[in-house]
Amino acid sequence: MSVNLYDATVPIFTKHLTGVSKWLDKAVAHAEAKKYDVEILMNARLAPDQYPFIKQIQAVCDQSKYTCARLTGKEPPSVPDTEKTLAEVRARLATAIAYLATFTREDFAGAEERACKHTWMPSAMRGGDYLDHFCLPNFHFHLTTAYQILRHNGVDVGKNDYIVDLPFQKA
Amino acid sequence: MSVNLYDATVPIFTKHLTGVSKWLDKAVAHAEAKKYDVEILMNARLAPDQYPFIKQIQAVCDQSKYTCARLTGKEPPSVPDTEKTLAEVRARLATAIAYLATFTREDFAGAEERACKHTWMPSAMRGGDYLDHFCLPNFHFHLTTAYQILRHNGVDVGKNDYIVDLPFQKA
Repeated sequence: MSVNLYDATVPIFTKHLTGVSKWLDKAVAHAEAKKYDVEILMNARLAPDQYPFIKQIQAVCDQSKYTCARLTGKEPPSVPDTEKTLAEVRARLATAIAYLATFTREDFAGAEERACKHTWMPSAMRGGDYLDHFCLPNFHFHLTTAYQILRHNGVDVGKNDYIVDLPFQKA
Repeated sequence: MSVNLYDATVPIFTKHLTGVSKWLDKAVAHAEAKKYDVEILMNARLAPDQYPFIKQIQAVCDQSKYTCARLTGKEPPSVPDTEKTLAEVRARLATAIAYLATFTREDFAGAEERACKHTWMPSAMRGGDYLDHFCLPNFHFHLTTAYQILRHNGVDVGKNDYIVDLPFQKA
C-alpha cells in the first residue's frame, strides 16, 4: 500500500475546521454566562502584536485551501479576509470546508513530488516537504493559537475539542 | 516514488525540538532585560487549569518518542517527567533528539499500515491514521502552546522561530 497525501490533508483539515464550530458554541455560552459580548473574543489576542482570533481562523482556512490547491496543481479561489463577526467566521469556515470537499483522492496522485510554491518563497518545495515542513505545522500553529486565545479568556474548551474523531480500527 | 513516514516524523520532530533551544535563549534574554527569574516561565500557563510550559515540552518530547516507536514497532525508553528547571528542559529536549537519531528510513518501511496503540486507546489505529489524526496534531498542539506561553509573557519569539529550516529546492 502506498500513501496518498489526500489522507493527510482533506479529511484532517475538514474535521479540524468543523471542530471549531463547537469552540464557537462554547464561546457563545461563556459570553452569555459572564454577560459580555462574544464578539469581543473575535478580536482577542495573547499578545498585543499578534493576530487576533479572527485572523488566526482566516489563516487556518487559507492554509487548508493553499495546501490542497498546491499539492494538486489547482488554482485556489480568492477568499478575501473580510470577516469581522462570529457569524462571518462560521461562514468563512463553511466556505473552506466546501472547497476541501471538491478534492478527490485521485487529485493527489503524485502530489508528494509536485513542485509547490508561494510567491513569498525563494523557490519551490517538493510536495511532501511542503506538507511536512510548512503546511501542517502552520495549520496547527494558527489553529492551536486560536484555541488558546479562547482558553486564556475562560472559554471551556479542552484537549478533546482539538484531538477529535480518532479513526480507531474495529477491535 | 512512494512516501516513507520517516520524512514526516524524524526530521520534522528533530528540527522543531532543536528550535525550542532558541526560544529558551530568548526567554533568558527577556528575563535578564526585565530582571526576573527565568525559571518563573517554566511554570507559566495561559489558564490556571492548563499544563505549565515544562509539561508542554515534556508532552512534545513524549509525542515525538511515541510516534516513532509505535510506527516502527520498537519499545520506547521510559523517560520520567522530572524536569523542574530550564537547564533540565534543555536536557530533556536533548534526550528526545538523541532518541530520534536512532531511527532510520528502513525502520519506517510499511509504517503506514502498522497497527499503533496506546493503553488509553480503545483499539489500535492504522499507522498512517495514527500519524495524521493524532501524533502530528498533538505534537503541534503542545509545541504551539509552549510557544504561546512564552509569547504571552513577552518573550520575543516570532513565527520564524516556529516555521524553521524550510527545504526549498535549488532554484
